[in-house]
Amino acid sequence: MRLEILTIGTELTMGLIQESNSSYIAQKLTQIGLGCTRKSSVFDDIDVISETIKDALLRTDVLIITGGLGSTSDDVTREALAKALSKKLVYQPILAASLEQKLKCLKQPTPETVLKQAYLPEGAEPIKPSHGTAPGIIIRHRSKVIFVLPGAPSEMSRMLEEAVVPFLRKVSDQRNAILLRKIRTCGEGELAIEEKVKEIVDRYSDLSISFIPKPGEVQLQCRAQGTSDQARVLLDEAEEEIKEVLGSLVYGVDEQTLEEVVGKLLKKHELKVAFVESCTGGALSHRLTNISGSSAYFWGTIVAYSNEAKKRLVGVSSEELLQHGAVSAPVALVMAEGGRHVAQVDIALSVTGIAGPLGGTKEKPVGLVFMGLAWCEGSYCQRFQFTGTRNEIRIKATQSALNMLRLFLLEKFENIGSEVS
Amino acid sequence: MRLEILTIGTELTMGLIQESNSSYIAQKLTQIGLGCTRKSSVFDDIDVISETIKDALLRTDVLIITGGLGSTSDDVTREALAKALSKKLVYQPILAASLEQKLKCLKQPTPETVLKQAYLPEGAEPIKPSHGTAPGIIIRHRSKVIFVLPGAPSEMSRMLEEAVVPFLRKVSDQRNAILLRKIRTCGEGELAIEEKVKEIVDRYSDLSISFIPKPGEVQLQCRAQGTSDQARVLLDEAEEEIKEVLGSLVYGVDEQTLEEVVGKLLKKHELKVAFVESCTGGALSHRLTNISGSSAYFWGTIVAYSNEAKKRLVGVSSEELLQHGAVSAPVALVMAEGGRHVAQVDIALSVTGIAGPLGGTKEKPVGLVFMGLAWCEGSYCQRFQFTGTRNEIRIKATQSALNMLRLFLLEKFENIGSEVS
Repeated sequence: MRLEILTIGTELTMGLIQESNSSYIAQKLTQIGLGCTRKSSVFDDIDVISETIKDALLRTDVLIITGGLGSTSDDVTREALAKALSKKLVYQPILAASLEQKLKCLKQPTPETVLKQAYLPEGAEPIKPSHGTAPGIIIRHRSKVIFVLPGAPSEMSRMLEEAVVPFLRKVSDQRNAILLRKIRTCGEGELAIEEKVKEIVDRYSDLSISFIPKPGEVQLQCRAQGTSDQARVLLDEAEEEIKEVLGSLVYGVDEQTLEEVVGKLLKKHELKVAFVESCTGGALSHRLTNISGSSAYFWGTIVAYSNEAKKRLVGVSSEELLQHGAVSAPVALVMAEGGRHVAQVDIALSVTGIAGPLGGTKEKPVGLVFMGLAWCEGSYCQRFQFTGTRNEIRIKATQSALNMLRLFLLEKFENIGSEVS
Repeated sequence: MRLEILTIGTELTMGLIQESNSSYIAQKLTQIGLGCTRKSSVFDDIDVISETIKDALLRTDVLIITGGLGSTSDDVTREALAKALSKKLVYQPILAASLEQKLKCLKQPTPETVLKQAYLPEGAEPIKPSHGTAPGIIIRHRSKVIFVLPGAPSEMSRMLEEAVVPFLRKVSDQRNAILLRKIRTCGEGELAIEEKVKEIVDRYSDLSISFIPKPGEVQLQCRAQGTSDQARVLLDEAEEEIKEVLGSLVYGVDEQTLEEVVGKLLKKHELKVAFVESCTGGALSHRLTNISGSSAYFWGTIVAYSNEAKKRLVGVSSEELLQHGAVSAPVALVMAEGGRHVAQVDIALSVTGIAGPLGGTKEKPVGLVFMGLAWCEGSYCQRFQFTGTRNEIRIKATQSALNMLRLFLLEKFENIGSEVS
């Protein structure tokens, strides 16, 4: 079964926005054994879109289109689809009523233009939006099937998951699935990780692994081909072997994040944590609270960005600031201990450093970061030297801080060894 | 002059990596008056690539191809191009020598496979790589011209800049440049903004505007066509008119962010700010400190995520929490006032709400957020009801908080009116 993806929008062909829908769709369908053979983007023009749809239908069995379903004047996908299939656009009163209902719930009036969305090509079925207002479209044309989804990524991905994937799963060739698994590591560079797992990679012939460096982590992207079951078994085996070799360098799999893993450990052991951040400016706290339910283990954060705040909120003294500077091991320790005292929590973690691009010196260059961790039995400090832009240094610092907390929790509460002092 | 972009690679059609080359190229060429009409991606297969090139040459004058120029077995773009144009691949001894020289400089041996890169279709010229080893290709075919660039974004972008843009600038119709300007607004929805500027859009025939909704903002992407000078003048005029109509809804232009604009206002008026965040969990603080130099106006933040933290750090009382709940106007006000008191700053801004997906009730649904602002003359509170996922609600809340601060600063310190109480 052949599959093509067509994304529509002048903003895409002009390069005004980075198109991501087609990669997302291709990846989801690859996972159920449907290989995409072509992705295209064209601009908002009825004739161009209509010709492109006609061409695609000469080559492909399934065509997935995104974009141009909204209610503004440059949204012409509906018209172009009707033209390509030589169908009329038909007003669907039930669809119109549900659009009006939806806007009523949001306490918004229904402008005339929105009702454009209630017109579908003859023979088409709407795909109800669980989110947003734009309905999707599904239409069969001879032996082919065409899906049209909204361009907004969040609306598109829901509709893909709820309507397109279940439909295509039934008709796809499950013997030829390509399954992916991402193994996420933190604490070592790309080459070191590659060296450690080299022997495993060589041993599995139906498995390929790419090493993808990201700020503060290295991901191992494993691909296995075969029936879904074969591929899954292969990935499970490889994952187990890789985890054995890499030990606590592996923090998660697929879409698991460090904040999720740390959150689970804190919850499991009924621990409360507080942060004291300086150079990360709230980014660490922001990440931990990305997880719904984080109030179970997260007390709060003091973003002590100025020296004033460090003194007033966590008890760093003027002498310490003068003697060691705000970016120093002693200050990181006091920040962690002071934070733990103020918050009266089990663990407090502090971060102080120079995110740059300004503010570095020869002794304390941009990227130098100290982190302190205080708990009931004492406190300790780690020193990091990161490279990159301000943004990259901040991402790497939050990543390392969460990892420092993870390794501490593993050693103290799960008896899994690392080099925590 | 018509232009198409073709990106090649099985990793692209499978969605394993996010393709970004085509957007980058399209944007660069848009700026010199060359509008891309279609972008496509196909997988590494000689016949498919060759057919796609032939098809494209029926429609376009310039074809820019990226990817598949390397030395591994799945790099077949060279062969596919030769096949599409019915040319032979010819060994180029000078090119081979320069490849060997390049690898020698890098102290690497020259594997046999690398010499594959020394074969070009008859009549083609190599584009020398200033970076990496893969040479690009330029070939004229009847009245058309085809460029082939490496797939690695850093190699591609250099070659584009050094060889493709200068070439196309000469032959492109400079009378037909398309210049872009983004006008960024916060505070109204897409339809309301469109309604307000409708008259301007209608009046300018050489100007087109797309309305791009983002979480917590609407961007007006203005495109002007003409000579570079004409287009620039047109954009300047339109920008001025749009700003006049939209007033303080416009916060910035092009790549300006809200945190940058707010930071500049704070700096200009020598004001210090502190935040007290609950549901945004540090995200607001994270954004303000994205800007290098923010320590000039940012004191710090109290992320009072738990009720304990609200009580201990900013003086919210148990009675207030019991009577009104943590998500309420009175608590938002106390948070702002308490934060201002603790930090001893000019302005404190507080955010408390329900980011979801859990924790909503009928009276206080997910997405309900209160924000308080305290300054020397008093304090006030605003109520927001956001929709979307947890992440979207948090982004919209930080956006609205920064905007609330911006509008306050405009009214109190720049005498620019808004509805600030």
